[in-house]
Amino acid sequence: MRIMEIREMRVPLRGAVANAVVNFAEHDVSLVAVLAEIGGRRLAGIGFNSIGRFAQPGLLRERFIPRVLAAEPESFAGGPNGAADPAKVRDIAMRNEKPGGHGDRAAAVGALELAFWDLAAKAGEEPAWATIARHFGTTPHEQGCAVYAAGGYYYAPGDGMSLGDEMRGYVDRGFRAAKMKIGGASPAEDMARIEETVAVLGSPGQLAVDANGRFTPDEALARAAELDPLGLRWIEEMGDPLDYALNARLTGAVATPVATGENLFSRQDLANLLRFGGVRPGIDVFQMDAGLSYGLTDYAGMIADLEAAGHARDQAMPHGGHLINLHIVAGLGLGGCEAYPNVFLPFGGYAPQCRLDEGRIHPSDAPGFGLEQKPELAPLIDEITA
Amino acid sequence: MRIMEIREMRVPLRGAVANAVVNFAEHDVSLVAVLAEIGGRRLAGIGFNSIGRFAQPGLLRERFIPRVLAAEPESFAGGPNGAADPAKVRDIAMRNEKPGGHGDRAAAVGALELAFWDLAAKAGEEPAWATIARHFGTTPHEQGCAVYAAGGYYYAPGDGMSLGDEMRGYVDRGFRAAKMKIGGASPAEDMARIEETVAVLGSPGQLAVDANGRFTPDEALARAAELDPLGLRWIEEMGDPLDYALNARLTGAVATPVATGENLFSRQDLANLLRFGGVRPGIDVFQMDAGLSYGLTDYAGMIADLEAAGHARDQAMPHGGHLINLHIVAGLGLGGCEAYPNVFLPFGGYAPQCRLDEGRIHPSDAPGFGLEQKPELAPLIDEITA
Repeated sequence: MRIMEIREMRVPLRGAVANAVVNFAEHDVSLVAVLAEIGGRRLAGIGFNSIGRFAQPGLLRERFIPRVLAAEPESFAGGPNGAADPAKVRDIAMRNEKPGGHGDRAAAVGALELAFWDLAAKAGEEPAWATIARHFGTTPHEQGCAVYAAGGYYYAPGDGMSLGDEMRGYVDRGFRAAKMKIGGASPAEDMARIEETVAVLGSPGQLAVDANGRFTPDEALARAAELDPLGLRWIEEMGDPLDYALNARLTGAVATPVATGENLFSRQDLANLLRFGGVRPGIDVFQMDAGLSYGLTDYAGMIADLEAAGHARDQAMPHGGHLINLHIVAGLGLGGCEAYPNVFLPFGGYAPQCRLDEGRIHPSDAPGFGLEQKPELAPLIDEITA
Repeated sequence: MRIMEIREMRVPLRGAVANAVVNFAEHDVSLVAVLAEIGGRRLAGIGFNSIGRFAQPGLLRERFIPRVLAAEPESFAGGPNGAADPAKVRDIAMRNEKPGGHGDRAAAVGALELAFWDLAAKAGEEPAWATIARHFGTTPHEQGCAVYAAGGYYYAPGDGMSLGDEMRGYVDRGFRAAKMKIGGASPAEDMARIEETVAVLGSPGQLAVDANGRFTPDEALARAAELDPLGLRWIEEMGDPLDYALNARLTGAVATPVATGENLFSRQDLANLLRFGGVRPGIDVFQMDAGLSYGLTDYAGMIADLEAAGHARDQAMPHGGHLINLHIVAGLGLGGCEAYPNVFLPFGGYAPQCRLDEGRIHPSDAPGFGLEQKPELAPLIDEITA
């Protein structure tokens, strides 16, 4: 195969909402297209760096794309379906990068590496989950993936919608579980919001709550103790995501599962969580996200690291409710995925061809990640590949 | 004060050398200039994001500079000498950034925040070390700072220079201590290189060795055990800089001081090293670098964190041998600094007005960091401020 061009497009997120820490109105995402020729066919591999942080036009154009374009085709040959090997592309992109410092660059490389997975699946005319399962020797989910609706943001008065309305909308669409934000209001207000949501979902075991790392250690422990008797599905990112000592105190203090990992961007960061974070096999939830952590090669390595430490792969439920992570969850046979039905467009949510019923989401048969089937993304893909 | 403009210039490093992990020929640095009016005077604050990683034009222009320019002047008022408060500038720059992910953005913000320290010192017509000491209430080094020559890179045959030549050059210039690279050759070859260097320096206690995170845990432990009897000054970054468990095994296994920290870019990462890394009060060496870790505000916080954990501030010897870190070491009264006499130009090394004798380097009386006195930097500062 031959790479003809690698393009990047910065796409602002639509659906301005806020969690306890940041306002997403300023956030954007890098859409990446790899234009290549494989066996005489011209194909475009499409990827992006998940959602909730920032586009990486600078890093992609300054460092990562030039290194891949400068590489000899043989140096990345040998991937699935005659395409480039995404693991080799990742290593070429990371040439001359120092260890440590897993931040923005992990997202830039993630977008690039994932575009090569889309390309490889398209070269085989198969959905990406099938390519992924075969490549990693995993048992894919053939009957769809468990999915929950992530939302439950803070609404300003006059928004014309309440938290209860939002949750009823999810249930009507076929979701059975949901996640809501906490930490942006007083404990009493958040407790009232939780009660309102549980009333709609029918059971506290269907509701997870997410503080987005907002609390100090003492606040996190106090809130966790207060939430623990409710029997929620999980409590997520109560404090600084790199505070492994706090995570160990939390898991030691509550019976409720503790979820974290969306802000761990490398295998070494995960190794520290596994070693120092007091995570409980079979209980806690791991939310690392390939698009934020150097792509699927490293993410699959993280899943192997989890299992080697005694955890089960169904404890992994990646951050980022979008088509790429749906195919990764399906292909690697993970615990489930999230969805952002109303926000983070054009990337959040699934394509109309992805069937949702009784809390399970089924990928379509479109080749690759099927991003072209998403009406909000299709015009951008047309533009970047034109 | 009023900010008129903030500019960024990408500057390639001269003096192409390689350590065990990366080739620096591709590395570059962001020079930042804050053009401001303070009390009717026009001043330019100059900063940069240390050396050894990459320039950050994308992140600075996409996120951090626009946020600071959009802020009301009152929001950052109250800094030293009537200038902006660098701590407030740092917080404004980080608005809407999520916790975790301390990588490239920490260097981008570092360059920006340090330019505001230069500006504040110039507003008071004093060297930056004086501004820093007064602001943080520290006892500055009035008689210069301990300095060692960092180098000892790998020379290809035909380079026209050997490691011994390099080290003799340092001694002739007034250095008494030095640091060299290991890990780019076999253990036997590295041992011969160490012997050659010790012979020039006169004592193993004057020589530190740096593996730049190259070794696997097993290799790191084996090499450390082999090096320990030599009585070296310290062994640096033997394995992955975020592998706190390995650091604890190393400090438990050797009497030689263990140095690390140049790839820890946040207070939370340092907190993990202090908690899990087995670091020894009074023995081990901390090398965090303000320019790579959000600037001096966070760096001074790290020094406070060190002391709160029982360590002494003279265990802190920042990575990055240049004028900015010389003023930080002098102002905060730290253990010492490094110098790169022959490489990393135009940023590495000190100005001719900085007197070096008997292993101590004395900052000049130039206002700010005195970057304008460095002949290699002066034309670039003229250009960015024109």
